[in-house]
Amino acid sequence: TKEDFDLAALYVSDAQYNRNIFFDTSPQAVRLYLLYNHWLPRVFLYFFILVDLALALFEEPAVVPLPFWITMLAELLCLLVFTVRLFHYAKVIPRDKFWKDPKNICIIVILLLTLIDMIIYGALVATNCYAVRWSRVLRPLLLVNITEGRQLRRAFRSIRNALPEIFYVFLLFMFSVLMFSLMALKLLGKRGLKTIDGSPYFSNYLEVVFDLYVLVTTANSPDIMMPAYNYNDIFVVFFILYIFINTYIFMTAFLAVVFNNYKKHLKEEVRQLVRAKRHKMVRAFAVLQERRGEGGELVVSQANWNQVVRLVQPNISNAHRELLWSVCDDKNQGFIGKLAFVQLADLLNIEVITLKSRPHPLQSCCPRLYLSAPSRLICRMVQHRAFVIAYDLLILVNAVFIGLDEENPLIANSEWVFLSLYLLEILLKLYVFEPRSFFSKNSFWNWFDTIIIVSALIATIINSALKSSGGYTSREILDIIFILRVLRLIRVVDSIGRFRTIINTLIRIGPAILTFGQLIVVVYYIFAMVGMELFKGKVNFYDKDSADPAKAYCGNPLLQKTAFAESDYCKNNFNNVVSSFVLLVELTVVNQWHVLSSGFATVTHVSARIFFVLFHILVVIVIINIFVSFILEAFYVEY
Amino acid sequence: TKEDFDLAALYVSDAQYNRNIFFDTSPQAVRLYLLYNHWLPRVFLYFFILVDLALALFEEPAVVPLPFWITMLAELLCLLVFTVRLFHYAKVIPRDKFWKDPKNICIIVILLLTLIDMIIYGALVATNCYAVRWSRVLRPLLLVNITEGRQLRRAFRSIRNALPEIFYVFLLFMFSVLMFSLMALKLLGKRGLKTIDGSPYFSNYLEVVFDLYVLVTTANSPDIMMPAYNYNDIFVVFFILYIFINTYIFMTAFLAVVFNNYKKHLKEEVRQLVRAKRHKMVRAFAVLQERRGEGGELVVSQANWNQVVRLVQPNISNAHRELLWSVCDDKNQGFIGKLAFVQLADLLNIEVITLKSRPHPLQSCCPRLYLSAPSRLICRMVQHRAFVIAYDLLILVNAVFIGLDEENPLIANSEWVFLSLYLLEILLKLYVFEPRSFFSKNSFWNWFDTIIIVSALIATIINSALKSSGGYTSREILDIIFILRVLRLIRVVDSIGRFRTIINTLIRIGPAILTFGQLIVVVYYIFAMVGMELFKGKVNFYDKDSADPAKAYCGNPLLQKTAFAESDYCKNNFNNVVSSFVLLVELTVVNQWHVLSSGFATVTHVSARIFFVLFHILVVIVIINIFVSFILEAFYVEY
Ligand code: NA
Repeated sequence: TKEDFDLAALYVSDAQYNRNIFFDTSPQAVRLYLLYNHWLPRVFLYFFILVDLALALFEEPAVVPLPFWITMLAELLCLLVFTVRLFHYAKVIPRDKFWKDPKNICIIVILLLTLIDMIIYGALVATNCYAVRWSRVLRPLLLVNITEGRQLRRAFRSIRNALPEIFYVFLLFMFSVLMFSLMALKLLGKRGLKTIDGSPYFSNYLEVVFDLYVLVTTANSPDIMMPAYNYNDIFVVFFILYIFINTYIFMTAFLAVVFNNYKKHLKEEVRQLVRAKRHKMVRAFAVLQERRGEGGELVVSQANWNQVVRLVQPNISNAHRELLWSVCDDKNQGFIGKLAFVQLADLLNIEVITLKSRPHPLQSCCPRLYLSAPSRLICRMVQHRAFVIAYDLLILVNAVFIGLDEENPLIANSEWVFLSLYLLEILLKLYVFEPRSFFSKNSFWNWFDTIIIVSALIATIINSALKSSGGYTSREILDIIFILRVLRLIRVVDSIGRFRTIINTLIRIGPAILTFGQLIVVVYYIFAMVGMELFKGKVNFYDKDSADPAKAYCGNPLLQKTAFAESDYCKNNFNNVVSSFVLLVELTVVNQWHVLSSGFATVTHVSARIFFVLFHILVVIVIINIFVSFILEAFYVEY
Repeated sequence: TKEDFDLAALYVSDAQYNRNIFFDTSPQAVRLYLLYNHWLPRVFLYFFILVDLALALFEEPAVVPLPFWITMLAELLCLLVFTVRLFHYAKVIPRDKFWKDPKNICIIVILLLTLIDMIIYGALVATNCYAVRWSRVLRPLLLVNITEGRQLRRAFRSIRNALPEIFYVFLLFMFSVLMFSLMALKLLGKRGLKTIDGSPYFSNYLEVVFDLYVLVTTANSPDIMMPAYNYNDIFVVFFILYIFINTYIFMTAFLAVVFNNYKKHLKEEVRQLVRAKRHKMVRAFAVLQERRGEGGELVVSQANWNQVVRLVQPNISNAHRELLWSVCDDKNQGFIGKLAFVQLADLLNIEVITLKSRPHPLQSCCPRLYLSAPSRLICRMVQHRAFVIAYDLLILVNAVFIGLDEENPLIANSEWVFLSLYLLEILLKLYVFEPRSFFSKNSFWNWFDTIIIVSALIATIINSALKSSGGYTSREILDIIFILRVLRLIRVVDSIGRFRTIINTLIRIGPAILTFGQLIVVVYYIFAMVGMELFKGKVNFYDKDSADPAKAYCGNPLLQKTAFAESDYCKNNFNNVVSSFVLLVELTVVNQWHVLSSGFATVTHVSARIFFVLFHILVVIVIINIFVSFILEAFYVEY
């Protein structure tokens, strides 16, 4: 029946896209499930998650302040959307499955807590009390717990799996840091040495621990060592030993532990994925199967198979479908068994590039001209290796011209020459190659070139028009032109085979890096929310033109003469979500993080450092190491 | 014959220690080869290499200046030793093999060049001309090219093997840096921004390239970004993108490429090692083989086998030898074939721990007392789990006491309590456990404990004696006591199984890390020699008590108001080999390397930065990545 085909098609497409959802098989649930998987509600959901996360821009402390009832209303709308989506999901899968799935429970808890927090917050604001929107830290967790967050959950799982082993290495590492600190305190604390800013050197145990923890991240090397080194050469041995053991051995041990765990669990994850996929396909087979004669084997006929494939991929070409069938039914029997059927999901994922040698449209419309001797000469010329080399040289010359002063009229005019030469190249290529294959999905560089050149052309023309009309040049347009000009040069790497391999490897691992991007956003968002509550308004940025004397100490007298203020770090604050994110990026890069954290400890309390150390442990020791493990493995597999 | 046995024993011990030397098989050459492998000339050789390297301490610029003819004489002596050793080697192996081996040629070239350099230097000094001892950079290469430098050569080979692939990634990386620099110059150069020290921001292309190269190492983050960020939020995107692509993606790609290469070539190296070992053993078999009857198989009899094993390991116990034989001759035939014989080299390398349950010496001498009820109670007590826990708690209490102020008389006296308790523990253990097994080769922690406690006891007694006799306390002895006290606490990690696993892994990879130590010494030595010629005397360190105004700018007016002088980095100079090594360690740690390199660029020429960038590429990008690869692989195999 029609419903059977729908069901089978659903199983196949679940297998194809690695969806592992045990939906109800009643016709109504199947219809709802089809709707659930439609791209529109998914985009809708992500859009509202984005809106929910973006609310931080408008809530206190805000980038663009809005009255709190507007953001509250927007959040209510988001909550509504999430609830509807969850309700939809509940209708799709059996009730017991729904309540057993921790991610659904998580979403419900998040929604409820958010609602409670909003009510409390509203009440407190109404009575003019101090109120904190604490449920904001829960927002990014939605990204993890929605059914579409499969990849992200996998990343979190690999973190969780690595945690026990990391924990033991971390304990040993902290033991080592504490021992070295004790030794430093005993050896250097009583010698009356001073740091460069005149404070006593290594005189307080907790300070020593923090300083030596920072040394592990190398951020205060060699400054932390200089007073001891200036006092006596021999103390250098202590620091070198410390750095060797803690920075090189322990930090690499962290990477090693994470990497081993990652590899081990990657295999397990892949195995589970394959198992789930097979399970779905077996179910699809069970729906479609017929028995060949009395007591014969169970098979799927070509007609049924065709119908399912057409349902799964409505826009598949007949040629492609027939190719797939001939792969499955290699004995040409007109039916296939379970084994052959199961591989369909993988076959559908293989991208088949149909290289049709279509004639050039110009050849069809005016063959005489297109096939004439000069036209053919042009074709041969463009396809010649020398053409590529000539344009690579042109790019190099262009690079030099870009480097030169653009105020020089000669240089400024040369831009037109380069632009037209690049445009000529594209036109020539379009003349020679069939346009549809030139702009095929896989011709990354053709797309890249054309977009860059055309945008540069448009921007340059607008700029010239503005200039000649009013003598006025828009800084923004000029910036865009400059960026486009430089981007244009990137094309040169495509000419060198070795570079192409590396770039292709990087492009292939791109989608997985996006998962890490989400992971980082989740962690950053939580830390940003907490950081804003702890540190908002403590450090203030003053504009360049401001004459306020408070500018020298970021508007907080406690910061007077600190490294934080003297390094001009006032804009690195938690006063809104954007500057928080920038600050967290700086903390991820690690350098100078002790200056940043000491700044915030100065304006609040020394225990504020815990926030920064926690961030370092979680992001740099755990997440960055998982990221590195992922790249190591990806390069091993892909390169 | 005796000579045959000697030859066979040589082959076996070559296989055992992975020596891959094709020595001449004439009896005279065999005798010479035996002498060549003796530990005494080898230690002698390493001692003279050390002397040769240590000459840098006494040569201009010297730590301890000596007249140049003394160091020249010492170096001549070293050269003589190396020549004799090489001559010895030449007598051992066939002449054509000797001249085909690049490492011999290298040594000859090094010796000749050194001699030429010494003559030229002597002549120039005699005529009061400016002279440079350029051949000093060749000295560490001896470590690589002596026959014993097998491991080190392997490390260099893995670098050489990784170089081509690193090179392509590096080109792409540099291309990326150059493109980003061009963009930065165009976007930020004309906006009239200033860095924190008031110099123009991103106005010179080469400066931009250097600054952004430094940013890849994260050393100037976030300072380099602040002017642009303060000017406009949007420029942060540029820097984040830059750091993401260059610091995270490219630096990890370097590690990935090195790691893949390392794994690939490790397999190949291991395969070659196994092949060479087998080859040696086959040759040993060929010397010893007898034919079993007419046309029977070739075998080695037990008697011959015994004699060879006794020659290879004179101090092997009979029980151990018989065990090995029974493993080889598993059918108990009295002879073994080639296959069984070949595995002998590996069998000899297996450490056999003979767990003899020897009775305690006290039990033998006064059994009545030792087996009495109270004595047995003590034994049970000491072997009880609670005993370990009690001492672990004691260590924790001790840690707290060490942290407290030791000037307090209570705390000072508690030290005696702790010391006697620790001593009691060792004595009790010696009472309970058989002393020879307590101090066996594998009881690392027992040795560790005893040495630490006994030294601490001796040092504390000396200190008390000094104090009570003259009221005088030696700072050095106190320091040693403090170090010993803290070291004592380390023992606690042995009680936790998980920690023991990690520590054992680290201890097992220890010897291989020594090879990296040598590798680093070779590279540091060369850079130190070059650095001293380029930068000696340009930056000077003034003592803390010095009142010289030049102290504020390291004795070089060019350094006035630079970050280098203001950070008190004067002692980070190339004025002698020790401070050069310390500086190179700091450069390896990377942090603040731009301040250090800019300091030296200021006092010489901007091109001095090339020296520092080269060091960064070679040591951080290549060698540290090889080191990390090694640890990753070792943890995978061992942990
Ligand atoms: Na750093």
